[in-house]
Amino acid sequence: MEKAGIDLLIVTDPANMAWLTGYDGNAFYVPQCVVVSKAKDPLWFGRGMDANGCRRTTYLGEDRIRSYEDHYVQSDTLHPMMVLGQIIAEEGHGSATIGVEKDNYYFSALSFEVLSTALPNATFKNADRLINWQRIVKSEREIAYMRGAGKIIEVMYQRISETLRPGVKQSDVVAELTHAGTRGVGEYWGDYPAAVPNIGAGADASAPHLTWSDRPIRPDESIFFELAGVHKRYHCPLARTYYLGKPTPQILDAEKAVLDGMQAGLEKALAGNCCEDIAQAYVGQLARYGLVKTGRSGYSIGLGYPPAWGENTASFRDGDKTELRPGMTFHFMTGLWYGDWGIEITESILITERQVEFLSNVPRKLFVID
Amino acid sequence: MEKAGIDLLIVTDPANMAWLTGYDGNAFYVPQCVVVSKAKDPLWFGRGMDANGCRRTTYLGEDRIRSYEDHYVQSDTLHPMMVLGQIIAEEGHGSATIGVEKDNYYFSALSFEVLSTALPNATFKNADRLINWQRIVKSEREIAYMRGAGKIIEVMYQRISETLRPGVKQSDVVAELTHAGTRGVGEYWGDYPAAVPNIGAGADASAPHLTWSDRPIRPDESIFFELAGVHKRYHCPLARTYYLGKPTPQILDAEKAVLDGMQAGLEKALAGNCCEDIAQAYVGQLARYGLVKTGRSGYSIGLGYPPAWGENTASFRDGDKTELRPGMTFHFMTGLWYGDWGIEITESILITERQVEFLSNVPRKLFVID
Repeated sequence: MEKAGIDLLIVTDPANMAWLTGYDGNAFYVPQCVVVSKAKDPLWFGRGMDANGCRRTTYLGEDRIRSYEDHYVQSDTLHPMMVLGQIIAEEGHGSATIGVEKDNYYFSALSFEVLSTALPNATFKNADRLINWQRIVKSEREIAYMRGAGKIIEVMYQRISETLRPGVKQSDVVAELTHAGTRGVGEYWGDYPAAVPNIGAGADASAPHLTWSDRPIRPDESIFFELAGVHKRYHCPLARTYYLGKPTPQILDAEKAVLDGMQAGLEKALAGNCCEDIAQAYVGQLARYGLVKTGRSGYSIGLGYPPAWGENTASFRDGDKTELRPGMTFHFMTGLWYGDWGIEITESILITERQVEFLSNVPRKLFVID
Repeated sequence: MEKAGIDLLIVTDPANMAWLTGYDGNAFYVPQCVVVSKAKDPLWFGRGMDANGCRRTTYLGEDRIRSYEDHYVQSDTLHPMMVLGQIIAEEGHGSATIGVEKDNYYFSALSFEVLSTALPNATFKNADRLINWQRIVKSEREIAYMRGAGKIIEVMYQRISETLRPGVKQSDVVAELTHAGTRGVGEYWGDYPAAVPNIGAGADASAPHLTWSDRPIRPDESIFFELAGVHKRYHCPLARTYYLGKPTPQILDAEKAVLDGMQAGLEKALAGNCCEDIAQAYVGQLARYGLVKTGRSGYSIGLGYPPAWGENTASFRDGDKTELRPGMTFHFMTGLWYGDWGIEITESILITERQVEFLSNVPRKLFVID
């Protein structure tokens, strides 16, 4: 904050709120935040009915929990940021330089407008990703949670492999994989993922972010799943593609290209290299097979809340010079989507002092179900 | 739009986007929108990789699908709204009066700032809830989907009743109820809820928006669930409270108060009355039992995407004079939360020409498991 010239930081990203205070609630659909200053403990601000949730999940003292009345919720005339403005002024920060997460889902254009009006003497600075970047190197405990999430994704794919057969409804397969993911494994119980399963069957595999219906699984068709195992809000995403029947040459060629490309990328996943090295190795290898990959090939992962499990910091793409350091975790998102087909085989990885570590152990291949 | 003095409307709420065009994707974690003008079909704008998702779920022609390159995603220097600004200018709307959903989750403060800069001659108006209000009276087909969602919530509670026993992990109960909810019933397959299950066991029942862990279900304790059955993105939320063992006088008194209060409220749930009538009847009846309810007692429901299934329009609360009309659907959210306990017994309802219709049939009572 000092380096960024910020006196006071308003944190609206639920993952940042949780990382700073432990606050874990499902109430981010109404305005709430954690206000960080230099002098005092963070201040939690949220809806009145959620203050008990704060009391039950954070270490904050009663004087650092402030809330707004329910008639501020979804009103045409009142807005919770009016109340936050008053609190900030009362705390003596009315003329402060205030950092706000301007591009966060939970800090709307109106929130900013109302807060600015309520604090006419304050100066606002964009503090997007300031906390996110602090989260990028994981602690031992965070890594343990993510390895737990990795064990969970293993049983999710096990269940898919047992269930996925021609004629079975997509929704029934999702019921099974979600069941396995929520039960978890041993001490690792399953938490909810920041995003629901993406599924692409047949030509729908050309689109990465569609979900399911009751469409039956069809023979002689591929279907991909992009899912996350989750433990205590920490994610291990993983995608795999299945083929029902005898795979076509096209999908077998794509499998080979993706696996070779991944191998090339993974060899670059070493402390001291940078993010773009992995992307370039992957995309470069794909090119040898005549495949073009335009999007990014991965992103930082960890603690996450809806709508996404990415940390919004480092990406595997051209120009991202973020240095890989031990304790960083990424989803090496190697999915390919073209006009009427696609393939997703991915890994979630941990950068270590030596070679890359995989957060889960699911065979890295096209799964074929005869 | 004409009445609001708006030439062009930028719709970022995923439920509004779906309602207008059919677009159904899980990609709202990156900027995307539907742009509505008077002259042409809506224009879909989103990330390049999601354009196929638009092609596969909407009726829009190729010339009405526009996208941005992947290096605009989560960049410190580029923003998708730069591209949208160019497109709007090219379409001849550079000097238009443009409505934006200023308080929507998916239209950030930065999105607004970048778009305003890209379109210096445009005038912006807040168009929050303009489309939401159009959605409040449901069509016959929408009602059919919500009745289907109602059948789904019935089997979810059935599964809970079969599973909930002292010693069982909360996460295992959630695995079961999610399994039942995703499988659905007959033709009604289960879609994902806009918000994950809220659970309150023991003193955690004082907080409405906590989720689960592997904490075992305890004897002589109450636990509430707030869940939704979902079919084709249409929701039927419902909460019920269970007691494991012999209920305490406190919870039995609360049950009686809530049920009496609900009865009073439901008697007001008639076309021609207004939203606050229901709230006042409920809160008034509770007061006779010495219980104070401060928050709102319900809200409009229907089509929804994360992070919430409410439509953000009418609420059951003092001052809400929205007239009840046939085809309106609400979650009568009668939950009570106090210092160290809480109770939730709710109904999702349809306003008709005659008496209120319940979207699901789950016994309206405290469930006791001996």
